[in-house]
Amino acid sequence: MNTDSIRIEHGAGGRLMAEFIRAELLPRFTIAAPDGLPDAAELPAASPPLFFTTDAFVVQPPVFPGGDIGSLAIHGTVNDLAVRGARVRALSLAMILEEGFSLPLLRTILDSARTAAAATGADIITGDTKVVRRGQCDGLYLVTAGVGEGMPGFRLNRRRLAAGDAVLVSGTIGDHGMAVMAARERLPASEALQSDSAPVLGLVQAMVPYAAAVKFMRDPTRGGVAAVLNEMVEGMSVGALVRESDLPFRPAARALAEMMGIELIRVACEGRIVAVVEAEAAEDILAVWRAHPHGRDARRIGELTSSDAGRVVMETLTGGRRIVDLPQGEPLPRIC
Amino acid sequence: MNTDSIRIEHGAGGRLMAEFIRAELLPRFTIAAPDGLPDAAELPAASPPLFFTTDAFVVQPPVFPGGDIGSLAIHGTVNDLAVRGARVRALSLAMILEEGFSLPLLRTILDSARTAAAATGADIITGDTKVVRRGQCDGLYLVTAGVGEGMPGFRLNRRRLAAGDAVLVSGTIGDHGMAVMAARERLPASEALQSDSAPVLGLVQAMVPYAAAVKFMRDPTRGGVAAVLNEMVEGMSVGALVRESDLPFRPAARALAEMMGIELIRVACEGRIVAVVEAEAAEDILAVWRAHPHGRDARRIGELTSSDAGRVVMETLTGGRRIVDLPQGEPLPRIC
Repeated sequence: MNTDSIRIEHGAGGRLMAEFIRAELLPRFTIAAPDGLPDAAELPAASPPLFFTTDAFVVQPPVFPGGDIGSLAIHGTVNDLAVRGARVRALSLAMILEEGFSLPLLRTILDSARTAAAATGADIITGDTKVVRRGQCDGLYLVTAGVGEGMPGFRLNRRRLAAGDAVLVSGTIGDHGMAVMAARERLPASEALQSDSAPVLGLVQAMVPYAAAVKFMRDPTRGGVAAVLNEMVEGMSVGALVRESDLPFRPAARALAEMMGIELIRVACEGRIVAVVEAEAAEDILAVWRAHPHGRDARRIGELTSSDAGRVVMETLTGGRRIVDLPQGEPLPRIC
Repeated sequence: MNTDSIRIEHGAGGRLMAEFIRAELLPRFTIAAPDGLPDAAELPAASPPLFFTTDAFVVQPPVFPGGDIGSLAIHGTVNDLAVRGARVRALSLAMILEEGFSLPLLRTILDSARTAAAATGADIITGDTKVVRRGQCDGLYLVTAGVGEGMPGFRLNRRRLAAGDAVLVSGTIGDHGMAVMAARERLPASEALQSDSAPVLGLVQAMVPYAAAVKFMRDPTRGGVAAVLNEMVEGMSVGALVRESDLPFRPAARALAEMMGIELIRVACEGRIVAVVEAEAAEDILAVWRAHPHGRDARRIGELTSSDAGRVVMETLTGGRRIVDLPQGEPLPRIC
């Protein structure tokens, strides 16, 4: 294996990507946060606090059940800001297009991006378009960036994590990755298999009354809930325990995942939040989430533990216990 | 010709790109500025004023005489902010990498991006990495975004343009496009042919004492000085007159351009400013530019006229006059 060239796993949300970021990016850039690798960075010395984030989107196919690359590119950036407790204020959209790409399809995708942006109350105010020759891009790639303003009350900090804190997820797990995979491979999937691509901003806004009790938020994209929990407890004096029986899955996603031998806890969502909150606030937050159209299937999936420090442990359906480690990479390439 | 699919010219800085933006992007997004299509957009209701911009970079080859895609991606975004009178405060860097891309070359490019960012006083504070299969990208594409803070005194507005205003350029024209083309086509070019890729922030900062006299600034990238001047006068009651004898060219760039039958006024720069200023301030601004390492070849190249409204006219070396219109596209693909 050539270790001196880029591999698919370098972009796949698993261990190799984490190593790549640590070896190549953190030493060069100020991306390093005191609190691990956040999805959005805080601008220095801004008042009110401003956050800044970017995401590249290469999903294939560009239109999939429940969404498309246009709305996905907006949701991804809006969500990276939201899980930092920030409301998006402005968006940018850069496009890399392959010569010959369908203009009607591009219009559909741009309309979808516009609608998705409008739903979050933010405009796409700047952009750029590059066109490359056939064979130098696979249709189109989109890159969004966003600037957001901090909402009051959130004090997100991994150092606040303590045994007994509740681990919540705002909805079913792995729908996005499975829906894209089914569309790409033309697998026989039920119509119920839809991406969860959606803005999580409304869910975060609903948490504002309980903001002080929220210690950690992340949207589980590449590498799924497993990657988020592993990154969260890495190097910490707490572990995370999740109960398989409490993980919310859609039957259609679970059926396809079992057929493919994939664990849904490792599969990307694009409209979910994983949050760790003080146990006393868990039911209140679940209640406001469930009252929101994007949070109906919200669940408490586990808690932090003083045992198994730095590790994610799953209590399985059969009552056993096993470690859920950071995978090498996301099992499904180009799902976002 | 298939009019329902993307063409190279849609991304090439000429007439087709302008039509594409007007037909497909402006009706959908709030990119439209009262003052044409600026390189950076102002965030609504920010104090001090904040600007936001993004740029995609697909230059081939990724390393060229005088620069590489890493530093170019930083300069492009820093410059889009600078010509709005804004100092960059934070940068993002998204990468789309082709499986198999050389890791040592990537390190060189990332080091170059870091150095370029540091030279402008801004950090790259957030990023994203996606990897696609061989044949789905041509090596690597970079997308930067930037947030900048307005510098005091600039009142850039096309509506202030008036006959008699001076048209300035901060250095030699077309070096970047010709250097990239020579490197890509392995043309026999002299060592003197180097990209002008550089931050123009220092030049804009030097203009602050004369900011009130500055009416228009743009960095002439795709489509070159010709595209900037055409977009500037489009729909206005003034025209622009440039004198061919006053256009600063490097002999090496001019020799190659003549060999290839390309007009340098249509070729991209990546470290220059085109500015329109009150005639009385022109010499002062040229003096502060020339005292700066990136502005030694600054020149007054012409002025605005009440005749030829909406048009760019060149007084040729032989004393003739001809219209320099917006080209269909940049003559050189993938130069940025």
